[in-house]
Amino acid sequence: MTYERPNIAAMAGYTPGEQPAAARLVKLNTNENPYPPSEAVMAVLRDFPADSLRKYPPPLASAFRDLAARTHGLKSENVIATNGGDELLRLLVATFVEPGRPLAMAEPSYSLYPVLAAAHGSPTVRIGLADDWTLPPDFADRVLASEASLVFVVNPHAPSGTLTSVDALADVAAALQGKAVLVVDEAYVDFVDPELRHDATALVRRFDNVVLLRTLSKGYSLAGLRFGYGLGSVGLIEPMLTKTRDSYNTDALAQALATAALTHRDAAAATWAKVRQQRQRLRAALAQRGFQSPPSQSNFLLAAAPADGLDGQPQARAVFESFKAEGVFVRYFDQDRLRDKLRITVGTPAENDALLAALDAVIRG
Amino acid sequence: MTYERPNIAAMAGYTPGEQPAAARLVKLNTNENPYPPSEAVMAVLRDFPADSLRKYPPPLASAFRDLAARTHGLKSENVIATNGGDELLRLLVATFVEPGRPLAMAEPSYSLYPVLAAAHGSPTVRIGLADDWTLPPDFADRVLASEASLVFVVNPHAPSGTLTSVDALADVAAALQGKAVLVVDEAYVDFVDPELRHDATALVRRFDNVVLLRTLSKGYSLAGLRFGYGLGSVGLIEPMLTKTRDSYNTDALAQALATAALTHRDAAAATWAKVRQQRQRLRAALAQRGFQSPPSQSNFLLAAAPADGLDGQPQARAVFESFKAEGVFVRYFDQDRLRDKLRITVGTPAENDALLAALDAVIRG
Repeated sequence: MTYERPNIAAMAGYTPGEQPAAARLVKLNTNENPYPPSEAVMAVLRDFPADSLRKYPPPLASAFRDLAARTHGLKSENVIATNGGDELLRLLVATFVEPGRPLAMAEPSYSLYPVLAAAHGSPTVRIGLADDWTLPPDFADRVLASEASLVFVVNPHAPSGTLTSVDALADVAAALQGKAVLVVDEAYVDFVDPELRHDATALVRRFDNVVLLRTLSKGYSLAGLRFGYGLGSVGLIEPMLTKTRDSYNTDALAQALATAALTHRDAAAATWAKVRQQRQRLRAALAQRGFQSPPSQSNFLLAAAPADGLDGQPQARAVFESFKAEGVFVRYFDQDRLRDKLRITVGTPAENDALLAALDAVIRG
Repeated sequence: MTYERPNIAAMAGYTPGEQPAAARLVKLNTNENPYPPSEAVMAVLRDFPADSLRKYPPPLASAFRDLAARTHGLKSENVIATNGGDELLRLLVATFVEPGRPLAMAEPSYSLYPVLAAAHGSPTVRIGLADDWTLPPDFADRVLASEASLVFVVNPHAPSGTLTSVDALADVAAALQGKAVLVVDEAYVDFVDPELRHDATALVRRFDNVVLLRTLSKGYSLAGLRFGYGLGSVGLIEPMLTKTRDSYNTDALAQALATAALTHRDAAAATWAKVRQQRQRLRAALAQRGFQSPPSQSNFLLAAAPADGLDGQPQARAVFESFKAEGVFVRYFDQDRLRDKLRITVGTPAENDALLAALDAVIRG
């Protein structure tokens, strides 16, 4: 006897990257920031009053939302705080997709999207990215043809790190207006080169059908805390804020620490600069060893194992397994276009050294 | 233009109890424990390592689940940890109720249940409680007749505090087996008199269709933390754990503090004894003033304003408003069977004194 809904009984769940328990590991598999959260965040944690744990948290996370609005030049009603970015993704599906109606997504992308569709009871429409991992020219047309009411795009793209311009996203938003919601998952946007002046918040001011996802997990070194937020028009934010969100979805501690993190954005920005520097160095060092990756604006690289190497040249999966045996964790995706590649999080200089040493050992056999 | 699903556009959201910001208030409106969390919990908070914030949390909250299983004499696979009890309620609906199929509930009860049904796209079947707030004899028959696949019962009941026996719940579970899931929302169970030896976990061992909801919000003084858990058969827990739950639904801090709270259960139990003592005293004092309440096994009282008092006798709503003007917050529900009553959280002796003084002032006019 099963009591599950048929679509739930038939589906497989999401597989998170491994969280190995042992110490002394080089963990470059789940895109965490290699540097700790700021001292200001830790001070708020240490001094957190017992009475604020005892009482229910502010239900709407108003202090955080006000701060995020000021940070991005928007209004508080354009902001929703969520229990990690994952909760925002689920709320978007629950609020704007009728069960049974398709959910569209760029392919490949975050492997959670199809899981959310399956749990909701909706089919997926997967629109393949171009060879250079950018959106194909007919992307919006294919979303419209599918009759999907919502589409997910990750930018910078995961797992390639490729950045799509705000202009290109604006074209998609304009084509979908009145028909579908465009969700731009900006989980990794903090790691974009500042010289590019990439800022998608203009889309929120210009279009009623765009939601940007932000998270403190990566940029602010707070993956353990589960805190994300969404930016969008009032018409999109309000129903999630007042109807589909769990009434107290973010806890009092998370609200306080997230507020401190965003207040002390400069401390986080210093870690982003270090990650960008290491990203450049690691990409070059991997390329020297025959592992090419596209230019990344994120905190990871998608490195392709050389297809025609020397005899016994390791393929991506074999390298992944060898690394693991040495305590070096990276991510391997057993799916089209990714089977010959490894996604490697940019770590500290020492972690990157350890990864390169492990790769040298594999190459030497 | 709205992008919302029709059922979302048509629904009203949940209204939480007020969280007034001012200090020096007597806040007896949202059933928090009046005593702070244990010192052991605060010590874990103060010493929490930055690196555990930086990295993703244990996705399944395994350490907490193992502890909860030992505490209740169950296995870890019978336990799911959730972001507050509210998340568990939503997961139960998402996993076991086909959109459009009715969701059953005892009436009156937690006002969130109909909101979850509306957001899911399911009608509600509300089965009125007997005059003494217990389940009516035909309760299971009416659930079956409605073809609901899931039914919510709060026990001890909210907002009356009345306790239904494990035997009565077992009869309902047996009648529903193979047809519907019985959810017993035990948010307030920690405040039951220990002499009653009330323990519903036997239902989990005996029936494949029962889920018990527990929360650390009330009993463990951690409403600000958002941590709850569910106990049920593997067939009910597993799909929520591996499919419908957000992949990292509880954060690293909440897991650590919840584990400390349950480890030091004795410290929490000392607060329960104090609440029970004050509950008895407050109930008698309210009755002396003409406000009768049913015997409560919870941390609140449902006090009825005297229907036939002296001339100018205050009615419940007027008392509620007068209290509020004096900075004393209680809860008023504008719905059938509750319009003549106030739900009053049991506070500290000083808070209860302040409430009684405010009531005396209202009665004197």
